[in-house]
Amino acid sequence: MTAANQKINVGIVGGTGYTGVELLRILSQHPQVELKAITSRSEEGVAVADMFPSLRGKVDLRFVTPENAALNQCDVVFFATPHGVAMSQAEELLAAGVRVIDLAADFRLQDTAVFEAWYKLSHRCPELLRNDSVYGLVEINRERIKNAKIIGNPGCYPTTVILALAPLLEQGLIELDGIIADCKSGVSGAGRGASVANLLSEAGDNFKAYGVSGHRHHPEISEQLQQLAGAAVGLTFVPHLVPMIRGMFSTIYVRIKPEARATDFQALFEARYAGERFVDVMPAGSLPETRSVRASNNLRIALSRPGDGETLIILVVQDNLVKGAAGQAVQNMNLMFGLPESEGLEFVAVLP
Amino acid sequence: MTAANQKINVGIVGGTGYTGVELLRILSQHPQVELKAITSRSEEGVAVADMFPSLRGKVDLRFVTPENAALNQCDVVFFATPHGVAMSQAEELLAAGVRVIDLAADFRLQDTAVFEAWYKLSHRCPELLRNDSVYGLVEINRERIKNAKIIGNPGCYPTTVILALAPLLEQGLIELDGIIADCKSGVSGAGRGASVANLLSEAGDNFKAYGVSGHRHHPEISEQLQQLAGAAVGLTFVPHLVPMIRGMFSTIYVRIKPEARATDFQALFEARYAGERFVDVMPAGSLPETRSVRASNNLRIALSRPGDGETLIILVVQDNLVKGAAGQAVQNMNLMFGLPESEGLEFVAVLP
Amino acid sequence: MTAANQKINVGIVGGTGYTGVELLRILSQHPQVELKAITSRSEEGVAVADMFPSLRGKVDLRFVTPENAALNQCDVVFFATPHGVAMSQAEELLAAGVRVIDLAADFRLQDTAVFEAWYKLSHRCPELLRNDSVYGLVEINRERIKNAKIIGNPGCYPTTVILALAPLLEQGLIELDGIIADCKSGVSGAGRGASVANLLSEAGDNFKAYGVSGHRHHPEISEQLQQLAGAAVGLTFVPHLVPMIRGMFSTIYVRIKPEARATDFQALFEARYAGERFVDVMPAGSLPETRSVRASNNLRIALSRPGDGETLIILVVQDNLVKGAAGQAVQNMNLMFGLPESEGLEFVAVLP
Amino acid sequence: MTAANQKINVGIVGGTGYTGVELLRILSQHPQVELKAITSRSEEGVAVADMFPSLRGKVDLRFVTPENAALNQCDVVFFATPHGVAMSQAEELLAAGVRVIDLAADFRLQDTAVFEAWYKLSHRCPELLRNDSVYGLVEINRERIKNAKIIGNPGCYPTTVILALAPLLEQGLIELDGIIADCKSGVSGAGRGASVANLLSEAGDNFKAYGVSGHRHHPEISEQLQQLAGAAVGLTFVPHLVPMIRGMFSTIYVRIKPEARATDFQALFEARYAGERFVDVMPAGSLPETRSVRASNNLRIALSRPGDGETLIILVVQDNLVKGAAGQAVQNMNLMFGLPESEGLEFVAVLP
Repeated sequence: MTAANQKINVGIVGGTGYTGVELLRILSQHPQVELKAITSRSEEGVAVADMFPSLRGKVDLRFVTPENAALNQCDVVFFATPHGVAMSQAEELLAAGVRVIDLAADFRLQDTAVFEAWYKLSHRCPELLRNDSVYGLVEINRERIKNAKIIGNPGCYPTTVILALAPLLEQGLIELDGIIADCKSGVSGAGRGASVANLLSEAGDNFKAYGVSGHRHHPEISEQLQQLAGAAVGLTFVPHLVPMIRGMFSTIYVRIKPEARATDFQALFEARYAGERFVDVMPAGSLPETRSVRASNNLRIALSRPGDGETLIILVVQDNLVKGAAGQAVQNMNLMFGLPESEGLEFVAVLP
Repeated sequence: MTAANQKINVGIVGGTGYTGVELLRILSQHPQVELKAITSRSEEGVAVADMFPSLRGKVDLRFVTPENAALNQCDVVFFATPHGVAMSQAEELLAAGVRVIDLAADFRLQDTAVFEAWYKLSHRCPELLRNDSVYGLVEINRERIKNAKIIGNPGCYPTTVILALAPLLEQGLIELDGIIADCKSGVSGAGRGASVANLLSEAGDNFKAYGVSGHRHHPEISEQLQQLAGAAVGLTFVPHLVPMIRGMFSTIYVRIKPEARATDFQALFEARYAGERFVDVMPAGSLPETRSVRASNNLRIALSRPGDGETLIILVVQDNLVKGAAGQAVQNMNLMFGLPESEGLEFVAVLP
Repeated sequence: MTAANQKINVGIVGGTGYTGVELLRILSQHPQVELKAITSRSEEGVAVADMFPSLRGKVDLRFVTPENAALNQCDVVFFATPHGVAMSQAEELLAAGVRVIDLAADFRLQDTAVFEAWYKLSHRCPELLRNDSVYGLVEINRERIKNAKIIGNPGCYPTTVILALAPLLEQGLIELDGIIADCKSGVSGAGRGASVANLLSEAGDNFKAYGVSGHRHHPEISEQLQQLAGAAVGLTFVPHLVPMIRGMFSTIYVRIKPEARATDFQALFEARYAGERFVDVMPAGSLPETRSVRASNNLRIALSRPGDGETLIILVVQDNLVKGAAGQAVQNMNLMFGLPESEGLEFVAVLP
Repeated sequence: MTAANQKINVGIVGGTGYTGVELLRILSQHPQVELKAITSRSEEGVAVADMFPSLRGKVDLRFVTPENAALNQCDVVFFATPHGVAMSQAEELLAAGVRVIDLAADFRLQDTAVFEAWYKLSHRCPELLRNDSVYGLVEINRERIKNAKIIGNPGCYPTTVILALAPLLEQGLIELDGIIADCKSGVSGAGRGASVANLLSEAGDNFKAYGVSGHRHHPEISEQLQQLAGAAVGLTFVPHLVPMIRGMFSTIYVRIKPEARATDFQALFEARYAGERFVDVMPAGSLPETRSVRASNNLRIALSRPGDGETLIILVVQDNLVKGAAGQAVQNMNLMFGLPESEGLEFVAVLP
């Protein structure tokens, strides 16, 4: 796609939200990337660094309208937009030879009926979804991603839950019903839109559950788990909101099959993720903390099995904006363009 | 106004913001108050406790439109509204014998030209302002408040700065130019409106100044200081936003007049505020903390004079929603209705 | 116990921690209480209000040593101490006719062998535990509490989990194995001791699990659930730490017995807790938030049953320092002394 | 010092505090650095990544005692230790040809009498201080730093105040008395020691001043300002604690000399810091926020002059652990070893 020594020309559609500014943070430091255009209709003409002063001296671009962005001349376009935007532009971009990485949901769900039920949108390009897109969870679909034209970048919750359960489902070691995912997210996951509920005065110094009666990440997780298990999976998923900006913690409870009680689960997970640069299976007895991955692309997993009993607990942390969004998107880009998977993603977590 | 053993009938106009819900918290526990009506056009019919679950089991009212609130039959009406609402309804209420306590700015500034310049509103009732209203800073205007028909409840910043400077200005001990008020507020002061700037993801884990080029509390402070000093006062006022919900901290720097260098300022302040239930002059060497007044009507003052030199530092803390807003409003109400000034306001600060 | 019109004379042993200062906040506002003594060896002679400036003007006592506290002349003594202190002094106090309310664990576990295994302390007065003490969860043991001489005040996590499950276990509606309690607490639950782990720089902006391999509240919960169920209960309990000061949120997952699938659980809970002043069963579809009970003695419960399936989710919030500690202790005191149960405990939650 | 293509061999003494782990975060990503040893007596043998899980997979070292650290074979040793350690080891290291960068105060104050008065320690090597050390504020002392053997890395507060005032003092534009520095810091500045005052439950949701009667950074700032002004300077300095982990905000008030009232201060500052990679003079009308520099080595300055009057306000933000400590130390190292000044320091601020 790019000749030797040439940088990847990147466009971003919708650069004013948190996944957008996180893409800018990562890509502006990526040694193989040339940022070509960032679009926003509402902020046309505004310097990106005026909106996000963290980028002063780092990003010189101004927001342009999509029409003026010359996206067709990019090598890859990231969509950090509301659901529905990427699928309306993907066909034209693909025709121009441009790869697409969508950080919204247009290419996550394989079943368009499920997509339409949850997102209240007709899918605009079911053929591209079926033939040209890959669900961009690298540690599951690495080889297919390398040749994909479109990436449906996974949701933040799904990334944690699927990676927590993959080793178990691939080996058929747990009961498929009664899986419980009790998940907790920092509020940046709710986005940068003006809202009362996410004011510091409302969400600060507070803890609550939300979406208990139904969350869009539920069908995404279920679909992927079913693919891994080869059968339907019964999942209870409860997301909660933590009074912090970044970070996601998932506590997942499964029942071990009677015939699998002798399994060394620690060894199983270590073997499954050996060599994975961004999935860290912590030593037995560890307890992960979200700050250990703050602003980094690492996801950490720890296991606990109280009393060596029937219940196995998988604890997972990630930064929802990095491995749960922009970092994973760049990891996908690296694979698609033949770069080392961790290129531009090796930054160390910020602690304290 | 109320016969013996009768409770005060209270109406609240605009009960959906933070000063509104704080009024409800205080008034619902006030032994001499009967809450009669709470208005909100946008939330008509909604149970107050559905919007603010903290009030479940404590407040049974539903929001009504102002037209249906029978405010004319109240003894007093609090306005927890945007600027401009109280002055449009005050005349009618006064005619019906109802007292008015405005938590917005309509009756704070004595000079309507200044009001109109800063608030971009024509004053609707300058005669009421002049003849029937009092600036409701109890520790300054106690006697006049008792007979006032309208109270302009002070702004949060002004409450701290004026009470910090009153003992000095009354005695003519400091230079009138070059006064510096470096003030810090929790974000609840910005109100409950949806906004990007006050999202937890924006205002959390962050510290910033705002309104440096001009803040509406500046003329309010200046006007009151001028009254106390009997001369114009040169004030630099810089407000800052602290990543916490409640609390205000003002650090005020003044230059002591050469002839006043021998003053015992600690004794001066203790004498000035002796007997004040809600102004606490802390012992010499103390440093106040906002949490020491969290959710209480107390304001604490401490003094520091490095090296017994020219500069005197006055440190003040209050809860911006209580002494800085709703608590002070109830303190005014108590005075107006002949109740003990601290009735219903004795609750202890919440620490930790 | 006290003659008509006489106040209850109260002593507090160990007043320098968070349960201690919270007892002081509540009891100093309690109309029927006379605070007689507060002990602390390390802070002897220090004014309580110097250590906790929130109490300035509200509490005039100084810390005294236990020897100088004349605890024998109190009507009731609260122990806000480390585990093991109350059981060493209970016998002498009871002999003097003094009631004891222990906020630590000495009188929580009915089985001393379990106590000794988890707390690494020999129980000093197993007979008092058996004959004179009651587990002080009012909504379960109200009648017995009225005549108790010693109260083992429940742990914070147990209060939420037991009240969430009591209606279900009392009616035998759920499977007794595989109960999952995923609990989240503000950091004040960790106490006021100096520690690196609970620094703002460590615990702030962070979310983590802890005690996964074993937490002292686990046997306490299990013992109480077993009593309610009349059989052993299989419980997985995972506590987590939330970056906020106060508040506890428990998400509890149970499997409904096949024969109980038609139960109206909402109606069941509403009936079970009808008339309870401090347990609020929220309307169907509600989601509780910790801030709705901040600094109040209320505990709120909501139910969710996704897809009307096998899994029932019970969501519970409380303030860990109030209903989870000091407030519940005062609720017990009220019962023991024949006062209205809610006396001095009606304060409204602080929101925002 | 290092041959071409050779990396700089780095040792760190005292790697268990926040400046230590921040040095590790930065140096582990620095392309020209080889981390050779990290010392800690108390944690000998512990893997650095076990203590700081953010470094898992990034730093493989274990803590060693100073005796086993072979510091003499390093090119440079950073001291992230309590005050007094560096000055006891500097002579031996210099004799072995090792450069020293001290992040504590041993080489900050030029006047040992002042040092001894404030730090209660006798200075161990006044000759090295005088002859071989440089105060490592790069934007002031760049040329001298290049040849320094010892760097006294500036305190966090001094970095902001000195850079804010340097352009004004160098040009003699302001009155030298009555300078006010109202400074606010995140709590990581208080270090990683166990303490009650810095618990989340104490410092969270709270704002306070501290050190009003005297802070060790006061003489450091005064000494540097005096050097810049060529005369004594009258400074009032009040530090405050903000409930956030990282970030520092200084609001500085000065009086412009009558003859300098026509100065274009914006142009002055822009000219003074033109070409400085890490000092960003923001456009006129800007207001800086600490999050705009979170986890980055940038310091931003904005100016405000209300009413074009006598008072000039300088607003400064930095990350106290980066430009205010570890980042500045690495900036010094780069200069001392002939590397580009920004090598390894170009990381973008983390926002949100």
